[in-house]
Amino acid sequence: MPGIELPEITKKLLAAKEAKGVSFSDLEAAVGRDEVWIAAVIYRQASASEEEATKIVNALGLGGDIASELMACPVKGLGPLVPTDPLIYRFYEIMQVYGMPIKDVVHEKFGDGIMSAIDFTIDVEKEEDPKGDRVKIIMSGKFLPYKKW
Amino acid sequence: MPGIELPEITKKLLAAKEAKGVSFSDLEAAVGRDEVWIAAVIYRQASASEEEATKIVNALGLGGDIASELMACPVKGLGPLVPTDPLIYRFYEIMQVYGMPIKDVVHEKFGDGIMSAIDFTIDVEKEEDPKGDRVKIIMSGKFLPYKKW
Amino acid sequence: MPGIELPEITKKLLAAKEAKGVSFSDLEAAVGRDEVWIAAVIYRQASASEEEATKIVNALGLGGDIASELMACPVKGLGPLVPTDPLIYRFYEIMQVYGMPIKDVVHEKFGDGIMSAIDFTIDVEKEEDPKGDRVKIIMSGKFLPYKKW
Amino acid sequence: MPGIELPEITKKLLAAKEAKGVSFSDLEAAVGRDEVWIAAVIYRQASASEEEATKIVNALGLGGDIASELMACPVKGLGPLVPTDPLIYRFYEIMQVYGMPIKDVVHEKFGDGIMSAIDFTIDVEKEEDPKGDRVKIIMSGKFLPYKKW
Amino acid sequence: MPGIELPEITKKLLAAKEAKGVSFSDLEAAVGRDEVWIAAVIYRQASASEEEATKIVNALGLGGDIASELMACPVKGLGPLVPTDPLIYRFYEIMQVYGMPIKDVVHEKFGDGIMSAIDFTIDVEKEEDPKGDRVKIIMSGKFLPYKKW
Amino acid sequence: MPGIELPEITKKLLAAKEAKGVSFSDLEAAVGRDEVWIAAVIYRQASASEEEATKIVNALGLGGDIASELMACPVKGLGPLVPTDPLIYRFYEIMQVYGMPIKDVVHEKFGDGIMSAIDFTIDVEKEEDPKGDRVKIIMSGKFLPYKKW
Amino acid sequence: MPGIELPEITKKLLAAKEAKGVSFSDLEAAVGRDEVWIAAVIYRQASASEEEATKIVNALGLGGDIASELMACPVKGLGPLVPTDPLIYRFYEIMQVYGMPIKDVVHEKFGDGIMSAIDFTIDVEKEEDPKGDRVKIIMSGKFLPYKKW
Amino acid sequence: MPGIELPEITKKLLAAKEAKGVSFSDLEAAVGRDEVWIAAVIYRQASASEEEATKIVNALGLGGDIASELMACPVKGLGPLVPTDPLIYRFYEIMQVYGMPIKDVVHEKFGDGIMSAIDFTIDVEKEEDPKGDRVKIIMSGKFLPYKKW
Amino acid sequence: MPGIELPEITKKLLAAKEAKGVSFSDLEAAVGRDEVWIAAVIYRQASASEEEATKIVNALGLGGDIASELMACPVKGLGPLVPTDPLIYRFYEIMQVYGMPIKDVVHEKFGDGIMSAIDFTIDVEKEEDPKGDRVKIIMSGKFLPYKKW
Amino acid sequence: MPGIELPEITKKLLAAKEAKGVSFSDLEAAVGRDEVWIAAVIYRQASASEEEATKIVNALGLGGDIASELMACPVKGLGPLVPTDPLIYRFYEIMQVYGMPIKDVVHEKFGDGIMSAIDFTIDVEKEEDPKGDRVKIIMSGKFLPYKKW
Repeated sequence: MPGIELPEITKKLLAAKEAKGVSFSDLEAAVGRDEVWIAAVIYRQASASEEEATKIVNALGLGGDIASELMACPVKGLGPLVPTDPLIYRFYEIMQVYGMPIKDVVHEKFGDGIMSAIDFTIDVEKEEDPKGDRVKIIMSGKFLPYKKW
Repeated sequence: MPGIELPEITKKLLAAKEAKGVSFSDLEAAVGRDEVWIAAVIYRQASASEEEATKIVNALGLGGDIASELMACPVKGLGPLVPTDPLIYRFYEIMQVYGMPIKDVVHEKFGDGIMSAIDFTIDVEKEEDPKGDRVKIIMSGKFLPYKKW
Repeated sequence: MPGIELPEITKKLLAAKEAKGVSFSDLEAAVGRDEVWIAAVIYRQASASEEEATKIVNALGLGGDIASELMACPVKGLGPLVPTDPLIYRFYEIMQVYGMPIKDVVHEKFGDGIMSAIDFTIDVEKEEDPKGDRVKIIMSGKFLPYKKW
Repeated sequence: MPGIELPEITKKLLAAKEAKGVSFSDLEAAVGRDEVWIAAVIYRQASASEEEATKIVNALGLGGDIASELMACPVKGLGPLVPTDPLIYRFYEIMQVYGMPIKDVVHEKFGDGIMSAIDFTIDVEKEEDPKGDRVKIIMSGKFLPYKKW
Repeated sequence: MPGIELPEITKKLLAAKEAKGVSFSDLEAAVGRDEVWIAAVIYRQASASEEEATKIVNALGLGGDIASELMACPVKGLGPLVPTDPLIYRFYEIMQVYGMPIKDVVHEKFGDGIMSAIDFTIDVEKEEDPKGDRVKIIMSGKFLPYKKW
Repeated sequence: MPGIELPEITKKLLAAKEAKGVSFSDLEAAVGRDEVWIAAVIYRQASASEEEATKIVNALGLGGDIASELMACPVKGLGPLVPTDPLIYRFYEIMQVYGMPIKDVVHEKFGDGIMSAIDFTIDVEKEEDPKGDRVKIIMSGKFLPYKKW
Repeated sequence: MPGIELPEITKKLLAAKEAKGVSFSDLEAAVGRDEVWIAAVIYRQASASEEEATKIVNALGLGGDIASELMACPVKGLGPLVPTDPLIYRFYEIMQVYGMPIKDVVHEKFGDGIMSAIDFTIDVEKEEDPKGDRVKIIMSGKFLPYKKW
Repeated sequence: MPGIELPEITKKLLAAKEAKGVSFSDLEAAVGRDEVWIAAVIYRQASASEEEATKIVNALGLGGDIASELMACPVKGLGPLVPTDPLIYRFYEIMQVYGMPIKDVVHEKFGDGIMSAIDFTIDVEKEEDPKGDRVKIIMSGKFLPYKKW
Repeated sequence: MPGIELPEITKKLLAAKEAKGVSFSDLEAAVGRDEVWIAAVIYRQASASEEEATKIVNALGLGGDIASELMACPVKGLGPLVPTDPLIYRFYEIMQVYGMPIKDVVHEKFGDGIMSAIDFTIDVEKEEDPKGDRVKIIMSGKFLPYKKW
Repeated sequence: MPGIELPEITKKLLAAKEAKGVSFSDLEAAVGRDEVWIAAVIYRQASASEEEATKIVNALGLGGDIASELMACPVKGLGPLVPTDPLIYRFYEIMQVYGMPIKDVVHEKFGDGIMSAIDFTIDVEKEEDPKGDRVKIIMSGKFLPYKKW
């Protein structure tokens, strides 16, 4: 995808993950954090504590010297202006199509403000369904009301 | 926000909604559909059946002649390339920051494919929390595996 | 400036403000809120309570029927992708030049997270100086640490 | 973040800073200049005098031969058109949302002109607050009135 | 073409294909899959099963260790925002010129929904014609009706 | 969708078509041309002969004075740079994902050249399928070999 | 030129100027300011004092009630991202081609800093030349050295 | 600055220039051409004759084999669409703010046509001023009237 | 085509031209100028003398009061960044594909410089050919060598 | 120019061409094809037959093993969205200014359709002229009428 260039550390971790056959849910079990968050650490979109970083690196069978790289506060945001990967694009499309409806419903329920993307969690679940399994994404972000001054 | 221009029908419905003091959850009760979906119909991002359209229009105290406009298949997508509204932008940011991590986790759980944005539902809930209420967004999209041929 | 189109209500309020010779600091005194925030309400970048809206409208000598428009949660963000107005562009330039330095200093002082632009205030002050008066901008935003999950 | 590529010298200095455990406020003490400005020198967004450059390099335990690179007038501006990093983006958002209100208030206080981003200082402070610490950003730029001719 | 950078694995496979004089239709025969899909695997726009990957690699006379790279779920989308290659651009042009007409005809035949680009096949055929051979492209995508909720 | 503005004549024809309950396949029968081509004429992406224009206008119950507008050579291309409508976007996605594979297969079958988008036809068919109906798109464009000189 | 939309007041003044046959140098004589600056006022890129505004309006034979519009601090910047008008584009080209050379020469003569575009004048002169007259543009902007803090 | 990548030859010449402590005005004296033009040759925005190239290379103490690289007709234009460097940006801003006023004044003085950016010279001078030195830029371009045919 | 908005005067002239059944080559005969240039005047991309304007207006059967609008120096450039109309796009494609080859050949024949687009003529001819008629475009622009100074 | 990156083979051929002092018209004589087309092959914008490729490579004194690279069907289009090189930009400008006039004249002479950029030749000639030599560009493209179906 034009515009995505993974950091060296990310490539190294993903290669080790593949070579060792470790899944993200294995990492979830080993680290005690959600797999999406761990993936975000690996993609350098989130920063880990020393303990978390060590656990991730260990679980992937890599030397502890790499751990510190996962503790740095990364420059975040991976993609190009409009993503070309179909899986990622669907989130862009959801924002384009349902952005205003969500906005209105949130304002009605909470008043003027936003859903935080920082005090925020996101889970990905598999919903088995005879008509075809479903991807369930659960986002939970603190409502932040606009401050007046 | 530069790039957003609402259709006339949307403005008329929102004005009626405000004037009559009808909330989206009132509409949910009246129509028997989720409030986000109804908001999507009003913003001309989704199309209603005749019965649904009539219920929406009636609930807003408008004449039934408007109903047919809500039944047309709209040209979808409301916003500019990168949204400037902070609430909507946070979804863009989530895609930028968590897009690749989600992609990897979905592929691990389901194989190569995507979460449909068409066979798709989205709910907005208020999660009460003493440390500050939270916005909960639940997306559920059918997993579509890539077809080989 | 290409890309800026003011809402009708904003034009009406600014015209009344000019015609009546009311300054933003007059509005500050009349409403009991900071002048920048009041300007943001007028430009439909912030929403007022009924009391605040009424005070603004009254101070500008306009009928109270307009007040409700100032209470709606606006679609925010006024400008084009890159602003062409020199005064506004300087803020873009500051972000381009000092963005990374600020980021590093904030991370060092606070850890991984951001300065909120929602739980946020901004003041504009005139600093008299014999070598040329200075514009002082004071931003204060709550630090939001990244949540882990 | 797509579009940000740090110069070699910046990477070398940041690595040394991390390895030696030197903070920006240590550098502030060692150099006698504000930490944001020093960070700007390191990110090659500002140029140092020979004395300042030598102090920075020494404080990071690096050889003096690097110092001259910090004295060159850099090509400034680090980021992409619209920043994807959430911390930096918030400044873009502030410009989008509060740009016009600030513009009007500045014009009212000073007349037609701008806040200089060159004869300009910026400070980042930590404001302790029981409800959550706050990031305080203080900008001070000389007001430059438009010359007529 | 600005914006297209092929992965190393793609370059290696295309070089082997050229060196060995293997055509895409040879690959079609060897793998038992359509040549366009196989080309998509080689360009890392689709993922193969172990058996398919091995067959592709073998047919190109390369070692099996490369096969696993073809099984990974790729980040998809090769080109720049607007393609400059004339052959690829024509598809962009078809979308620009016939996009709305197709949309209307699809809606009339199927209702509100889309043609899936995931549950999707595409064939390229040569139509011999005395007035000049023709390229025939046959797309077949599952119709996905918008879900209501 | 930002960037799409239909010509007045298009709006008038579509409104008449809806009011009269005429389908595109009714028009196909009345005009003796494919429904996609007729839709392209109505969207002002193709030009009709006098006879064709008259038949279209008559079938929609409109006065013949409008017919001449359908005979003019239109400025073609309806959408924004990247379409936001999901149905139209899928064609953009197909170009992003399958553009290079198609290019290679076409070159292998035909040599260096392109599929014409002018000496070109496109059909939309409904493929009934118990697992879900399918949209079938058949494009046929003359192969144009690059001329050497 | 796409992206340029003149304000109503500008159109009115230019029409009056044309109708009355007043040239910019006539205005220069009438107002006692440079013709480029006066043109900038008319295009709403600069703000006039009451006296200047009145002189401009009078010279164009228009009523004084328009004068106040020329006194407002305008939102500046007229054109699209990249200008299409050949005369204006040449200035963009000069920046593209000579931007870095000028930057280096300015830094060598003045140190790190910029030429102000606010404390700035610009003159347009006709240089008669037997080989073809020449356009002479003289810019004079205060050098602003970067402040350190 | 994103988008600026200097050619190898430019880096080599600038490094030699810095190492030897040669200024652009030294080069002006050595070559007998204006320093801005010489800087343009070094940045590969202009092409030198063999004699000029040799003089430049000699003055920088480099071997004559490099000279021929300065004689090639370069692909010109260094920067990104909108420059981020503040010094260069000011020229973009001048074009945005004063582009239309200059256009009108030029047309009034010369008729329809442009100032050539090819038959063109540009000088940078230092204007000493007790209130702060000024940067003076003098452009002189041949007026090219539009040909009619 | 998104981004093209014709001036009122252009629409009026084109409507008159169509109503009266006057072709561009009729106008060529009536005005004594090439039809492309006349079309450029009508599209407000070129300016006419009083005599030429009057002839154009007369030939279209319109009142002489319109003539003066054709004498003004227009803001030139009609289209969006990348044209979507297939006929116009082909010129963009020719520039993309043959731009560098033409550049090299011109430099070899003429030295460093450009083909003027101002001292420039363009003719469109029909070349009859049994294998299909051809469009012949002949451009002739003065070579402008780069001035040194 | 940002966005142009030449393939390795192109750089090698251009270097050999320069080293050997071979001109494009020498190549024209040696290959029996037009120099612009040969330059297009070298820039990898066109594909040669084995015989043509061998002649080109031989004329440049390079080994025949390179020839096959010139026979591959290239990914075409060299430049950025809007070219910054002044010579190439003029073709963009011609398209912006004369695009619509050419379109109308072509439609009038030929009906609805386009000039092919594939069944297309382009010649560059030097027109000697005492008032300054002229660059003559002759394009000849087959007219392709829109097919109806």
